[in-house]
Amino acid sequence: MRLADLQTPALVVERAALEHNLATMAEALPGDRLRPHVKAHKTTALARLQAEAGHRRFTCATIREVEGMAAAGLGDDLLLANEVLDASRLGKLDARVTVAVDSEQTIEAAVAGGVGEVVIDVNVGLPRCGCAPADAGRLADRARSRGLEVRGVMGYEGHLMLVGDQGERARTTEESMALLVGAFGDVGGELISAGGTGTYAVNTWATEIQAGSYLLMDTAYSALELPFVEALTVLATVVSASPDWAVADLGLKSLGMDHGNPTIPSRDVWFCSDEHTTFSPPAEVGDRVRVLPAHVDPTVALHEWIHLVDGDEVVDTWPVDLRGW
Amino acid sequence: MRLADLQTPALVVERAALEHNLATMAEALPGDRLRPHVKAHKTTALARLQAEAGHRRFTCATIREVEGMAAAGLGDDLLLANEVLDASRLGKLDARVTVAVDSEQTIEAAVAGGVGEVVIDVNVGLPRCGCAPADAGRLADRARSRGLEVRGVMGYEGHLMLVGDQGERARTTEESMALLVGAFGDVGGELISAGGTGTYAVNTWATEIQAGSYLLMDTAYSALELPFVEALTVLATVVSASPDWAVADLGLKSLGMDHGNPTIPSRDVWFCSDEHTTFSPPAEVGDRVRVLPAHVDPTVALHEWIHLVDGDEVVDTWPVDLRGW
Repeated sequence: MRLADLQTPALVVERAALEHNLATMAEALPGDRLRPHVKAHKTTALARLQAEAGHRRFTCATIREVEGMAAAGLGDDLLLANEVLDASRLGKLDARVTVAVDSEQTIEAAVAGGVGEVVIDVNVGLPRCGCAPADAGRLADRARSRGLEVRGVMGYEGHLMLVGDQGERARTTEESMALLVGAFGDVGGELISAGGTGTYAVNTWATEIQAGSYLLMDTAYSALELPFVEALTVLATVVSASPDWAVADLGLKSLGMDHGNPTIPSRDVWFCSDEHTTFSPPAEVGDRVRVLPAHVDPTVALHEWIHLVDGDEVVDTWPVDLRGW
Repeated sequence: MRLADLQTPALVVERAALEHNLATMAEALPGDRLRPHVKAHKTTALARLQAEAGHRRFTCATIREVEGMAAAGLGDDLLLANEVLDASRLGKLDARVTVAVDSEQTIEAAVAGGVGEVVIDVNVGLPRCGCAPADAGRLADRARSRGLEVRGVMGYEGHLMLVGDQGERARTTEESMALLVGAFGDVGGELISAGGTGTYAVNTWATEIQAGSYLLMDTAYSALELPFVEALTVLATVVSASPDWAVADLGLKSLGMDHGNPTIPSRDVWFCSDEHTTFSPPAEVGDRVRVLPAHVDPTVALHEWIHLVDGDEVVDTWPVDLRGW
């Protein structure tokens, strides 16, 4: 199939860019040094490429992602880097599943759900999940007393991912990881799981990095000095044009909008509606535009398919099969 | 099933609120005076309730919505209020389908796709689709010369929906509709299709109003003085808590974020991540929270199911079956 024959809006991934990002990360963080986060693409076909690049352990954000990875035969070592209060679906899977815990309730949920392995989730500065560092040892003891295997700690320095200056990002990451390494001393185990695309190069304390966005990238991460390139665009068609603006057939239902408007190269985006984006200077009705989303993760969650393209050729079409909960 | 047994995040609709909104609108705009827009809920089960309330003609934003409505037996009179350049899927449907056109290219697409009926889409002030009012007559002539039935005009005063002062909204709607009524004089036909939830009561020029949000509502529309109540919430579970904040298991992948953060009654929302919302003052791990999205339409597009609840009882579960394109 030709690119021109795709129904729009459509998620499109450039093969050369994808392969560049895969190879660049596999060289920087080979094998188990990277635990790719599948939430960034929600697509087992892309996870399979990451596995073929040497990364056989994966990070997930939802129970559905864990289930889908297990069903796809990618269940060697799946970390649900998130707290859940009903782990019963996880306990049934034919896969190695480890779940994050940060409270007695989440420890009890792991026990009740039949999940045998956990990591202690430690708050390292982002006001979100994770226990206080001083509580990590106590929670690990509690988990072990309930029969769970404690594999180590995790902590996500998400508040530092988009710090613009790399030196400042390195310095603040060191402070943040000092908390995690301290907690690891109290917890024990083998894993110090942390990091993301913004800190993959400067976080040298984690034993494994949970980066996901590096594979497809977006305009927010592209503003940093990272060696990854934007591989994903939303293909759209200009369906209406006036002398002053044009309207493409993508909008709030095909773009994650929390980081703001998308980017259309050499155009000025005015605003997005449910199924429209107005921009100037205008294009012709029927023209195709390639739109760069501001935030890739919620963009992917809105689409059923990702098309892999090489030039004008659509070489593969993959279901975005890890959506939902 | 009990509300407490729902896996979260989950879209929940309150039966009493839904019935109030249905009845209030059916009284204000009975029968064909309302052409409900299905883009607001993307759920044929909800469209069926609107049909039972007397509204048998529907507005759609995507080809998939038209297909789904036809397949559900709700295809008496479907208006695709949007321009398309490939109408071939529409021409195959066992339903009455009318498509908006605003250019020679979209007229040719209707002809090529086998769609027999069109409305001329007129720009009434929102910089989006629609021809200049002065061009409407020429396009109608063109469409008729190509064998199409021209049913009238449509024009969406979307820039006026959220004007806070009702008097100002009425005044600007009158100006906007003067453009549409003028174009209708040049076009002819039976339909003047316009309006939305914000202007349904003040737009007395349109023969039919395309409101959709009235049924479920959201915090943006609730800021206006409208007689509709918020019927839709996202049910979430507190999965982590600290002394200063708590974290619920909904986020950028379960909430449309273009209108900003969601609202948690009696709580202060700090920020949303992919699968988390941090808020204060904290709640207990395991507590359920009902979260009001800022914009209902893109929120619905992220979910597979809508649960109808009556008190603590889940009385029905419907697929959000009009998603995608």
